Amino acid sequence: MTPLWLSALDMAAVFVFAVSGALLGGRARMDAFGMLVAAFVTGVGGGTLRDLLLDRPVFWLVDARYLAAAMAATALVWLFGARLERLSRPLSWADALGLAIAAPLGLAAARSVGAVWPVQIAMAVVTGTFGGLTRDLLCGARPMILHREIYATAVAAGAAVGVLADAAGAHPYVSGAACGASVFAVRAAAILRGWESPQWRGHAP
Amino acid sequence: MTPLWLSALDMAAVFVFAVSGALLGGRARMDAFGMLVAAFVTGVGGGTLRDLLLDRPVFWLVDARYLAAAMAATALVWLFGARLERLSRPLSWADALGLAIAAPLGLAAARSVGAVWPVQIAMAVVTGTFGGLTRDLLCGARPMILHREIYATAVAAGAAVGVLADAAGAHPYVSGAACGASVFAVRAAAILRGWESPQWRGHAP
Amino acid sequence: MTPLWLSALDMAAVFVFAVSGALLGGRARMDAFGMLVAAFVTGVGGGTLRDLLLDRPVFWLVDARYLAAAMAATALVWLFGARLERLSRPLSWADALGLAIAAPLGLAAARSVGAVWPVQIAMAVVTGTFGGLTRDLLCGARPMILHREIYATAVAAGAAVGVLADAAGAHPYVSGAACGASVFAVRAAAILRGWESPQWRGHAP
Repeated sequence: MTPLWLSALDMAAVFVFAVSGALLGGRARMDAFGMLVAAFVTGVGGGTLRDLLLDRPVFWLVDARYLAAAMAATALVWLFGARLERLSRPLSWADALGLAIAAPLGLAAARSVGAVWPVQIAMAVVTGTFGGLTRDLLCGARPMILHREIYATAVAAGAAVGVLADAAGAHPYVSGAACGASVFAVRAAAILRGWESPQWRGHAP
Repeated sequence: MTPLWLSALDMAAVFVFAVSGALLGGRARMDAFGMLVAAFVTGVGGGTLRDLLLDRPVFWLVDARYLAAAMAATALVWLFGARLERLSRPLSWADALGLAIAAPLGLAAARSVGAVWPVQIAMAVVTGTFGGLTRDLLCGARPMILHREIYATAVAAGAAVGVLADAAGAHPYVSGAACGASVFAVRAAAILRGWESPQWRGHAP
Repeated sequence: MTPLWLSALDMAAVFVFAVSGALLGGRARMDAFGMLVAAFVTGVGGGTLRDLLLDRPVFWLVDARYLAAAMAATALVWLFGARLERLSRPLSWADALGLAIAAPLGLAAARSVGAVWPVQIAMAVVTGTFGGLTRDLLCGARPMILHREIYATAVAAGAAVGVLADAAGAHPYVSGAACGASVFAVRAAAILRGWESPQWRGHAP
């Protein structure tokens, strides 16, 4: 029932997230299979939690191509990872792209079960960030999503744009595109200009 | 179908857990949105795992007020967190209160699907502690639940009291109250008197 | 509906995983109840995630004997853990045994819902490794599954043998036994001979 181009987008998001997982796993000196596990968890983690929470069939159980995408990502990093690393901040850009695809899919999934808009936004954030959170925990890294630059905030802001477009009566594809473009724009600004969210200044010095 | 006062209690537990999440997130130098994520995960984590395990609709998906409670908790910490920190051990007391509410709700949820009593106790522990466990993992802290003072033990002890009251034929509200009061009493003793569970002395020195 | 000997095997796997969880929790200076939580999470974690993903009733909710197995494992470690520690690498051997039981059960569960073979293998890896992953995260240890020796790789290799036996028309018990024996053989070789998976050499030095 899912149109082909939508599956293709979803698979692209899984692929780019998986690349970031394999890269970080490799840096954390995991073995080949550990890198594949990190790639897979990062790639499908967000969508898996989304499907569990919404009580839908878990997407990669019914379509083995997502597993293949994680394997391809691991092979790519294994063979060309050193070159990927030398490119400037490849991890951040791969993440931004995946995020711009995952957020509207999370939004649409929550809308399809009749969730109200704050829950739709939360589900976009879950879909976009849970894979990366798990990646950072697995690899012993500080969760970059919660600290560095504007990240989860970008997903929430883009999801809000999607919700507004939806409320204005836009076609689901239009509101989804608006959501994804907004997520990418905010993340790009954060990467290029170093936009940062405010930190709490209240703790004892 | 849930009576209003029960929803209000549940929301209060989410709120106090969320306060502890936002405080720890702030201390770990998360940004504003990271603190909200930590608050939300801490607040709804235990109940979410409970609902997933029992195959029930996830409670915060069908009622957006839980999200609002996490937002309010984050705003409170952002504005008044420094004062909260100066109060003695605010984290522990907020946790104790949330625990005393979450434990009987977990117990009741497990009973409602016909689980036997050891599983009911386990589900009370899951509901009470999973949010805090995730908070500590996200914030890079040692899981206080499994180490410091009597914590999960308090939930288990209180849940056992609830199970006994239930077996003696008490009204569900009575056994729930007995469970919650026992959890709070044991935690209060642990906080005030420094009660500690025994540690394993068996490991090689 | 599950034959008794299969439940007994499953419970044995939970028990040996739980022993490894209680041992690592004790080493991480958890208190008695923390050790029980670590034992339980390690014991049932993989099977729980498997059941959640496949949308089946969570196995330990409907059969409280799994909880009892985790308690027995904790008691064993509490009383005789020092002796267990002195035995050479008891953690690894307990893990290998649990793995050899968990992998075919994961494979069979995925097959029973009609998953294709790559997903069956992934589900065997999930069932075998998720408990140990969670144990290492809870105890603040580097996930040994993703780094040291051949571990998840052993599960994947054994699962592939099971899938091949299945494709050759073997009885489910035969393919399951072939899967488990292969997992154990590869793990034993890794433990005894120090077999290691290749690591990525691509990262910047």
